[in-house]
Amino acid sequence: MIGFAVVGYGYWGPNLVRNIAELGDARLVTVCDRRAERLALVKSRNPSVNITEDFDEILRDPDIHAVAIATPVSSHFRLAMSALMAGKHVFVEKPIASSAEEAERLVEEAARRGLVLAVDHTFVHTGAVRKMRELVQEGLGDIYYYDSVRVNLGLFQHDVSVVWDLAVHDLSILDYVLSVRPVAVSATGVSHVSGEPENIAYLTLHFPGNLIAHIHVNWLAPVKVRRTLIGGSKRMIVYDDLEPSEKIKVYDKGITLGKQADGQSIYQALVGYRTGDMWAPHLEVSEALAVELREFVGCIATGGTPIADGHAGLRVVRILEAATLSLAQRGRVIDLEPARQVA
Amino acid sequence: MIGFAVVGYGYWGPNLVRNIAELGDARLVTVCDRRAERLALVKSRNPSVNITEDFDEILRDPDIHAVAIATPVSSHFRLAMSALMAGKHVFVEKPIASSAEEAERLVEEAARRGLVLAVDHTFVHTGAVRKMRELVQEGLGDIYYYDSVRVNLGLFQHDVSVVWDLAVHDLSILDYVLSVRPVAVSATGVSHVSGEPENIAYLTLHFPGNLIAHIHVNWLAPVKVRRTLIGGSKRMIVYDDLEPSEKIKVYDKGITLGKQADGQSIYQALVGYRTGDMWAPHLEVSEALAVELREFVGCIATGGTPIADGHAGLRVVRILEAATLSLAQRGRVIDLEPARQVA
Amino acid sequence: MIGFAVVGYGYWGPNLVRNIAELGDARLVTVCDRRAERLALVKSRNPSVNITEDFDEILRDPDIHAVAIATPVSSHFRLAMSALMAGKHVFVEKPIASSAEEAERLVEEAARRGLVLAVDHTFVHTGAVRKMRELVQEGLGDIYYYDSVRVNLGLFQHDVSVVWDLAVHDLSILDYVLSVRPVAVSATGVSHVSGEPENIAYLTLHFPGNLIAHIHVNWLAPVKVRRTLIGGSKRMIVYDDLEPSEKIKVYDKGITLGKQADGQSIYQALVGYRTGDMWAPHLEVSEALAVELREFVGCIATGGTPIADGHAGLRVVRILEAATLSLAQRGRVIDLEPARQVA
Amino acid sequence: MIGFAVVGYGYWGPNLVRNIAELGDARLVTVCDRRAERLALVKSRNPSVNITEDFDEILRDPDIHAVAIATPVSSHFRLAMSALMAGKHVFVEKPIASSAEEAERLVEEAARRGLVLAVDHTFVHTGAVRKMRELVQEGLGDIYYYDSVRVNLGLFQHDVSVVWDLAVHDLSILDYVLSVRPVAVSATGVSHVSGEPENIAYLTLHFPGNLIAHIHVNWLAPVKVRRTLIGGSKRMIVYDDLEPSEKIKVYDKGITLGKQADGQSIYQALVGYRTGDMWAPHLEVSEALAVELREFVGCIATGGTPIADGHAGLRVVRILEAATLSLAQRGRVIDLEPARQVA
Repeated sequence: MIGFAVVGYGYWGPNLVRNIAELGDARLVTVCDRRAERLALVKSRNPSVNITEDFDEILRDPDIHAVAIATPVSSHFRLAMSALMAGKHVFVEKPIASSAEEAERLVEEAARRGLVLAVDHTFVHTGAVRKMRELVQEGLGDIYYYDSVRVNLGLFQHDVSVVWDLAVHDLSILDYVLSVRPVAVSATGVSHVSGEPENIAYLTLHFPGNLIAHIHVNWLAPVKVRRTLIGGSKRMIVYDDLEPSEKIKVYDKGITLGKQADGQSIYQALVGYRTGDMWAPHLEVSEALAVELREFVGCIATGGTPIADGHAGLRVVRILEAATLSLAQRGRVIDLEPARQVA
Repeated sequence: MIGFAVVGYGYWGPNLVRNIAELGDARLVTVCDRRAERLALVKSRNPSVNITEDFDEILRDPDIHAVAIATPVSSHFRLAMSALMAGKHVFVEKPIASSAEEAERLVEEAARRGLVLAVDHTFVHTGAVRKMRELVQEGLGDIYYYDSVRVNLGLFQHDVSVVWDLAVHDLSILDYVLSVRPVAVSATGVSHVSGEPENIAYLTLHFPGNLIAHIHVNWLAPVKVRRTLIGGSKRMIVYDDLEPSEKIKVYDKGITLGKQADGQSIYQALVGYRTGDMWAPHLEVSEALAVELREFVGCIATGGTPIADGHAGLRVVRILEAATLSLAQRGRVIDLEPARQVA
Repeated sequence: MIGFAVVGYGYWGPNLVRNIAELGDARLVTVCDRRAERLALVKSRNPSVNITEDFDEILRDPDIHAVAIATPVSSHFRLAMSALMAGKHVFVEKPIASSAEEAERLVEEAARRGLVLAVDHTFVHTGAVRKMRELVQEGLGDIYYYDSVRVNLGLFQHDVSVVWDLAVHDLSILDYVLSVRPVAVSATGVSHVSGEPENIAYLTLHFPGNLIAHIHVNWLAPVKVRRTLIGGSKRMIVYDDLEPSEKIKVYDKGITLGKQADGQSIYQALVGYRTGDMWAPHLEVSEALAVELREFVGCIATGGTPIADGHAGLRVVRILEAATLSLAQRGRVIDLEPARQVA
Repeated sequence: MIGFAVVGYGYWGPNLVRNIAELGDARLVTVCDRRAERLALVKSRNPSVNITEDFDEILRDPDIHAVAIATPVSSHFRLAMSALMAGKHVFVEKPIASSAEEAERLVEEAARRGLVLAVDHTFVHTGAVRKMRELVQEGLGDIYYYDSVRVNLGLFQHDVSVVWDLAVHDLSILDYVLSVRPVAVSATGVSHVSGEPENIAYLTLHFPGNLIAHIHVNWLAPVKVRRTLIGGSKRMIVYDDLEPSEKIKVYDKGITLGKQADGQSIYQALVGYRTGDMWAPHLEVSEALAVELREFVGCIATGGTPIADGHAGLRVVRILEAATLSLAQRGRVIDLEPARQVA
């Protein structure tokens, strides 16, 4: 029976609490938050759980084996590092840290101590994204592009830009779905609130070959859109996360390339079009957070590695960091170093 | 009664022919195309119209006062310039020419001779875009962003990239709808067919202040999307050109900015959200091409200037040219010179 | 502080429990269910609440002032009547009872004892339906028709037909939204599972004048649809309950009637069409069940009458009963007696 | 080369003219209409076609072998019968005639003279409906229901009710798609314009066994809907004719029936749910009218029988006639006689 603490009871914390409470092999021991009124809410909903404003209590409690962190990004590193150093396994909300350097140090610390470090890349645990990975790796042919729109009205963050808040989802999906890694990134964005971080941004990821990925994130859109197009040489996907059931549609569509015959004028088409059936595979509907917490607990028990481990978290933060640099330079292309293996 | 010739009877030519035939004050005299089988088709559909493979016949015909050009872009300049030099008014399919230099020369020639030069920026004559202009100039407040997605499967062009084929629509809409001009552009794109121009591209237009415009064009998408978001400080618009009737939706949504009180932590929201009604104004449903041809004929009669005149065509081509340069340099930001006034 | 008991912890019971727990002026005292495993679940989620399999315990408990009943329909009457006779206020899931006779007896009993009797006509407490009532009574002109489609796959009920399970929602909406009452009903339906009640049905309600209402309910549809059209002489409404935010759309559309001139042939249109703006009013988004429980508690405190009181419940059951009779006779039209006033 | 006349150049006539002009083996000889201004329009568009106000000219013209009739329903019988008696093959707009008696006489006359009699049941020639027939006959299992909504604003007809104008489409689709025939019909409807036929109506068709069909037609709806649900024991279909490409969606969904175990309570589900993939088959996109005119011309040449022959037209009119009778009696169920074979 794994004892858990949840740190941070804001927007996401209650979901952690509810899901940990329903895990079979785990027990929620303590919830920590700095705000007394949030702790009072925890107590009214979960009378048997300990509450505390003092994070160190958690570090000292031998009944707590794992710490789930759902605080603002800027505190991820400090809390996660303290927990690891106290010998706790760590599950941290995305993004794993504020900088690649911080992420690297977490990865190293977890490795040194043999602890499980997982980052809450929620989407990679959904039926839709798992199916997408399967399709990308088997059915689509050569991948041509990944294009994602993730926009809505609010919630404006004050400590991070929309890139760190929303694009992180696409970066984690890309990291999971594709087997290649981007070599460069550029990002353009604007802030419409003086003194605040960018609320609209466009990221372009360059890959080896002619694969390109593009992400549009926006906190100031009148409608909510969560739509990704993936083009392949054999098939194409539309992934609409707002669809109640057919989130993934696979189109048997594409182009066929002919040879230009001698003397054929430039106006004679070389490109043919192929249009076939559309197919929406049935998807598993388990709550992603439940799936990933089960996986986390399983890894603690067996010494396994979670899908979204510290390395995945680090790869994503490297791109976020480069994108932030690019944002500040009106979209200059920033090369991504070949990912060094962290000890 | 204005006598018309149509040059080029490919994809768009038949629409010109049909609309000119139904204009009250005009008469279609001749259709010109290099392909005998296309001319045969013209004749079977319009037995009373002259057909010719020889463009010079048109130039010499005194009954022809205006020439509508619907040929590949690379021939626009040569045909339009010849027509102007023969004293004909010219209506040319978008984009007006292959380069800013060509476009400038057309503008100058038309001005010198007092002829009407119009470019077929079709969308600016739709009820939807006209309403959008009205809203942008009156009801939206400060404009924050323009974001357009214009994607579908095919038709691949061989002589121009998807930017010249599809983004040109958004550039002409922006030119009409906004009262400010972009100061720089960057574009990234990829070709997925060896030796062919880019079939997917992303353009970013930078404006003075914090207005940004972004255009996603793609010939290789599994679904057709024609959707534009416009964010303003007071209201926001979704323009979906594929909607059968409610193409324009106006959202009374936005953010309200509070003052940060002394001692207020960074996590206490400064940004509030406002959500009100949505409203889809009734739009005029006349065919855009009919509207613009009527305007063109009217300008010939009265000496007026069409909305999409040569200057508009030139402004759009300047951006296309800069975008092409940027495409070749992985998205380098290209400054747009302040538009010189052409004589 | 009103003490509450919830009877029945199946599909709907947990929603009652959660909402009562969050009401300010109420306290959840006891949950009753016959199934030990359901009670165990209650206890694990709400350690401080009493649980019991014995309904009589509730009747005897002086700390319980109100009983919320969420059991199968066939038990509504027995439980509600016992509760009323024990002096408890009663909130009962829809439909209020299995027959008009039962419903009448509940209404009489509540009146005699001065107790509040409310039926959980959930939809009449939503922002969408409240707005619809406002529009129907003010902005639509003469009402021409109400047409509702309420279909999905499952959940098959075994004790009642789809009419009692799904059409009851539309009947309660109609009862609230319109100021006129139907005079006759007919219903046709089919069961596709041998020995089970009808799983697809069509109801037609006849009103005085030329107003007609029609309801399509179906447990065996491949897609979920919740769409209502309301036609009026001035405006028309589409109410789509599955839309995330614009659930109500008001169309400024309709016909205009001309006079037939002397000698005008029958083919010359007398009917003109008017097409104006569409408008989606902003709706309140409170959870309906919270709103109605607050209203119920308010009525207990002040002696007021809830919107969906026993009389509303009775009117709806009268139609359900007549529809059931019609179903058994292949759609014979059943006249609805002018609603007698119950003491 | 089959010589054609088109009678009636109103809403549908121009489509006939255009399609006949593009048929390979046919020639449009004459267009007839009573209205001089419509004939002038024909002439301006098709200078080489004869025009006449005198239908008898057509009957006398030996170059005319086939007559396509697109006039108001009330004149179908007279014109079609005259044409048949003059030895012409006949293609008549739906519905084939105003009454079953008229339709029978046309069928008999065509049979006696060995002429081809086709009715323009346009939808049965679409890729969508052909695919639907294939699926209904092979992939859906037992058919449970057919439910269609066909509503929009206008065009009000003055000589026939909305049933004859819109429901006729569903009746012709049902006639083609199902292999069983309805045994009874009931219809309810209302007119909202004094003195005019019903503008909203609901039809229910009863079939042997537990198959039911229901059709909602409405000229006074704020939105256009063309949606049909077909439920089968193995699969279900949604056919949305307004979808640009995926008009037919096949859902691998349904119920599975268990056995009630001894002592199993009524609340233990006997009905299970099965949810699998959705699939949108690629559909042929030829214009239906072109397909059916080609078939008509082919039948003339080879002596074949069109899919929508006089018998199909007659079966549909029998139902329309019974529905009209039912409409006048507030939905009384009208038995359909077993279709007599017409000589």
